[in-house]
Amino acid sequence: MYKDACKWKLDVPMPDSVRHLNVSPTIPELNCRVVFSAVSSPVAYEIEELFASNGYIVVSNASAHRMEPDIPLIIPEVNPDHLNIINQQKIKRNYDRGFIVTNPNCSTIPLAMVLAPVKEHFGISKAIVTTLQAISVAGYPGVPALDIFDNIIPNIKNEEEKIESETPKILGKYGGDRFIPYEIDISAKVHRVAVCDGHLLSVSVKTSRKADIEEIKKILKGFSGYIGVYNLPGAPEKPIIVRNEMDRPQPRLDRNAGNGMSVVVGRIQLCSVLDFKMSILVHNTIRDAAGAAILNAELIKAKGYV
Amino acid sequence: MYKDACKWKLDVPMPDSVRHLNVSPTIPELNCRVVFSAVSSPVAYEIEELFASNGYIVVSNASAHRMEPDIPLIIPEVNPDHLNIINQQKIKRNYDRGFIVTNPNCSTIPLAMVLAPVKEHFGISKAIVTTLQAISVAGYPGVPALDIFDNIIPNIKNEEEKIESETPKILGKYGGDRFIPYEIDISAKVHRVAVCDGHLLSVSVKTSRKADIEEIKKILKGFSGYIGVYNLPGAPEKPIIVRNEMDRPQPRLDRNAGNGMSVVVGRIQLCSVLDFKMSILVHNTIRDAAGAAILNAELIKAKGYV
Amino acid sequence: MYKDACKWKLDVPMPDSVRHLNVSPTIPELNCRVVFSAVSSPVAYEIEELFASNGYIVVSNASAHRMEPDIPLIIPEVNPDHLNIINQQKIKRNYDRGFIVTNPNCSTIPLAMVLAPVKEHFGISKAIVTTLQAISVAGYPGVPALDIFDNIIPNIKNEEEKIESETPKILGKYGGDRFIPYEIDISAKVHRVAVCDGHLLSVSVKTSRKADIEEIKKILKGFSGYIGVYNLPGAPEKPIIVRNEMDRPQPRLDRNAGNGMSVVVGRIQLCSVLDFKMSILVHNTIRDAAGAAILNAELIKAKGYV
Amino acid sequence: MYKDACKWKLDVPMPDSVRHLNVSPTIPELNCRVVFSAVSSPVAYEIEELFASNGYIVVSNASAHRMEPDIPLIIPEVNPDHLNIINQQKIKRNYDRGFIVTNPNCSTIPLAMVLAPVKEHFGISKAIVTTLQAISVAGYPGVPALDIFDNIIPNIKNEEEKIESETPKILGKYGGDRFIPYEIDISAKVHRVAVCDGHLLSVSVKTSRKADIEEIKKILKGFSGYIGVYNLPGAPEKPIIVRNEMDRPQPRLDRNAGNGMSVVVGRIQLCSVLDFKMSILVHNTIRDAAGAAILNAELIKAKGYV
Repeated sequence: MYKDACKWKLDVPMPDSVRHLNVSPTIPELNCRVVFSAVSSPVAYEIEELFASNGYIVVSNASAHRMEPDIPLIIPEVNPDHLNIINQQKIKRNYDRGFIVTNPNCSTIPLAMVLAPVKEHFGISKAIVTTLQAISVAGYPGVPALDIFDNIIPNIKNEEEKIESETPKILGKYGGDRFIPYEIDISAKVHRVAVCDGHLLSVSVKTSRKADIEEIKKILKGFSGYIGVYNLPGAPEKPIIVRNEMDRPQPRLDRNAGNGMSVVVGRIQLCSVLDFKMSILVHNTIRDAAGAAILNAELIKAKGYV
Repeated sequence: MYKDACKWKLDVPMPDSVRHLNVSPTIPELNCRVVFSAVSSPVAYEIEELFASNGYIVVSNASAHRMEPDIPLIIPEVNPDHLNIINQQKIKRNYDRGFIVTNPNCSTIPLAMVLAPVKEHFGISKAIVTTLQAISVAGYPGVPALDIFDNIIPNIKNEEEKIESETPKILGKYGGDRFIPYEIDISAKVHRVAVCDGHLLSVSVKTSRKADIEEIKKILKGFSGYIGVYNLPGAPEKPIIVRNEMDRPQPRLDRNAGNGMSVVVGRIQLCSVLDFKMSILVHNTIRDAAGAAILNAELIKAKGYV
Repeated sequence: MYKDACKWKLDVPMPDSVRHLNVSPTIPELNCRVVFSAVSSPVAYEIEELFASNGYIVVSNASAHRMEPDIPLIIPEVNPDHLNIINQQKIKRNYDRGFIVTNPNCSTIPLAMVLAPVKEHFGISKAIVTTLQAISVAGYPGVPALDIFDNIIPNIKNEEEKIESETPKILGKYGGDRFIPYEIDISAKVHRVAVCDGHLLSVSVKTSRKADIEEIKKILKGFSGYIGVYNLPGAPEKPIIVRNEMDRPQPRLDRNAGNGMSVVVGRIQLCSVLDFKMSILVHNTIRDAAGAAILNAELIKAKGYV
Repeated sequence: MYKDACKWKLDVPMPDSVRHLNVSPTIPELNCRVVFSAVSSPVAYEIEELFASNGYIVVSNASAHRMEPDIPLIIPEVNPDHLNIINQQKIKRNYDRGFIVTNPNCSTIPLAMVLAPVKEHFGISKAIVTTLQAISVAGYPGVPALDIFDNIIPNIKNEEEKIESETPKILGKYGGDRFIPYEIDISAKVHRVAVCDGHLLSVSVKTSRKADIEEIKKILKGFSGYIGVYNLPGAPEKPIIVRNEMDRPQPRLDRNAGNGMSVVVGRIQLCSVLDFKMSILVHNTIRDAAGAAILNAELIKAKGYV
């Protein structure tokens, strides 16, 4: 049973509804239509395809399939139309009822969510991203205390590459039969810091058309993406919350905004090198992981794919 | 006595040589030639001028006088010739034997030290700097535990402005009667993180002339600045240490390099937005504060100003 | 308004119902029957008496009045009958409709809650208590990060005395006109540790009658105190939760048990010096502070004092 | 080479003298007389005996052999005469030139060092010990950050048993042919806390003869053990440092006392349950581990066993 199989590490007790769930082997003999994948990437590749070819809808948080040309990389607020590639995917892979949908890397989600409306209004050509990422993202046992205590690790394996490659795909267009990535140069630098939950990103952006700070704030505040159309139960009321204080967002104070599903943006100001800069915060185990996958599943259902 | 006046917070016992020092009021009646100033900036302005006008050489770690046009802002390895302004300073301020010399802000020191040789060889036009700064810099009591525990504060008062304004002054030239700042756009974003000692900077740089990564590494490794000339006792053997590992520098592992007086640079790689990027680490209470002031005093002596 | 007056430090957003509350001066001109006091002890003494003498029911989390002979020190599960002293209090202090009720110190609450059923069944003569207390208890700004980071402070002002004196009062009897403290020797040693929320107590106990470990577990599990009688809305379903794992309770994993209102006990085992020992965990800002006061107010209402 | 084999985690750079040491397989073909053992206990048993039977003096920090009746468990300041059992050990085990000497568990060392002089003057019958132990003791990778961040773990495997059993052996007498353990009841409760280095112990003691607090302080301050006799180079000037402040010892402030080889005792006061109580601090990776083994090796040499 789940309660025996799981090393529960959250600060709320395990819900009773979960405690007595059966834990089954990872073989495609489950009595359900949708499966969620959070297995580690080396095995994810094969397992996810096995389930999809056996008729399951695979909603994956793993990185294995994200950059495949026929697999959608979805943030419901940003690019729900990318689901349209599913038909090509089924044909190409000879899937019948099954298919694979992925959500982005934990730092890419908040970045793409915030860049999306800016791109829409002003265009973006360049972004420099520095992340300060929490320890709860790396699975258990994850980071040894001796490595992160009184310390910062200035790298996370493959994370910079993921941010730099996934973001253009998400911000790009579905061209009818393939994805056309958005033309943007992204340079990412990632850090692991001693914070329990909450990734903070410091981002400088070059826009194609000049934008003033107040316009940017207004556009971010007003952003609802396509989410309103689908009325997804897990969607936050506001995907982006803009704060004006000089010292926000902060992980501990802002990570639970919108039940952990909102992205909080602050310190929006001019950048003397590119055009503007800002701080972005997101809850890395909610919006960036389980919550992202669930929202994708809700979108898949709302759009009639189930 | 010092042992009674001081709330000692270091993890090494207070040295006996310090315990029994007398603590005197801050009035210019001390029997010495050089005074060190680390008073907080609002009062530093007046106190430092009072001592200078009474014939003392004031070596200051405070920010009050750093940007004054007639006051040198010195890193011995970088701009020792800026001390030449002292004559103008004395004339202008009507000082007799006294004068004021300052050292830069704690994030500016490592930044300027690393940019100096790059500027020398390639020229620099732009830099984007994101800092992750330790808690030990803010004086005691400093940051409340409730603010920084499991958290990041995405701002430190006036810190971004200091980095952006001090660096051009340090990298600039002494033009015979005034400082000519170096023409560079710097955009800084600062964070306080839960690390005891050690500031980490993530920096992207645009060079005037194209530079490849190996050249940059070679130049940084070979940098000794003007320090060899003066043979200062407190100077580190190598002002800049370059590391090639994928996860260095780290505060806990690298802050004590060169007895806390070296700057450690790592992750030097191409930046797809500007030209190259890197991570810089420095011990914020040694190289950035007390150690900086002492090294300046040694330089002043070596150059014959005492 | 509250949102302007308050430095909100919790990791959940300030509830809307609270944001727009008016903040008034601390004078007895409020339109209500019950006031909660969490002012610091030096001023609490006077303010609480001022409100009580003006007809308010003062439910206090401050320590000022706790040990007064005519003021009840209440844990609803343990000693609700101590409220009976209110009549004497009113007469002695010449109060009309007002009176003062206090809740214990943050380490005393979990200790007394767990000792109460043990005392009832076996009697207790001695207890040695070592606490590991979270940083969130000391108010804001509270503990400086420089003091507690990578550190432990082996004392908290007056805390040991409070544990040693309050516990006998709570476990004692109301003798018709005065409190008769329970005869027990308690020796407390307190520590501040770098945990955000959750006090952990290590306790060794000498019982009057020999008790085996299984009996003690059974009695703690079965404890409901007098709480069932009053059906208080804020009371946890189980005041005491017993865990059998070798490494529980832990602050992050157990502090929110029973919505932060339950006390979690684990590692119950024989003590080779006294009789048995155990670990006790409690949420210090819920059960130990605001939650304690609210539960007391609910009890006061349930018993008809309002 | 050592620099390649070792994941160096200290905040001082690896000394050059160590970087280029050869790393050899763990077989008894080394060209030396003394070997230090810090292998994990399951394999230590066999390896240590293999080396001893091949003529090496094995100075071990592992727990495997500590409680063997013919193997000395040594703290040079406390029981150097226990080395006398080496002759019996050699005969019993048929060793020629080799033998095994161990040092105690990390929490036992400071406890036994402080109890030793108290026992000598007053006798001790009981002690209750609560430990707050640092993360650096568990080897690498050791404790996962997710387990200890914002948390306390109220147990460490086998640690309580080690404290309770090793202390009587160390405080006991060498009876000419065997050890006679000291008659004392010890009850230990251990915790892992988020401190990098430094174990803190809270200890209550019952003495056989009544002792007042000032006498105890005087005896602890005056303690030099047998160390003076042997003039060991690694021995601290004062094995025990007594502090009188209300909030000392603290791990970060006191762990490096005596170059990490002294034990710091504070908050010595009456205990209302036993007789007196105190806080004890020790550097867990110096005095408790490598430093303990080196000091034992120095003692072995000083006493002519090499």
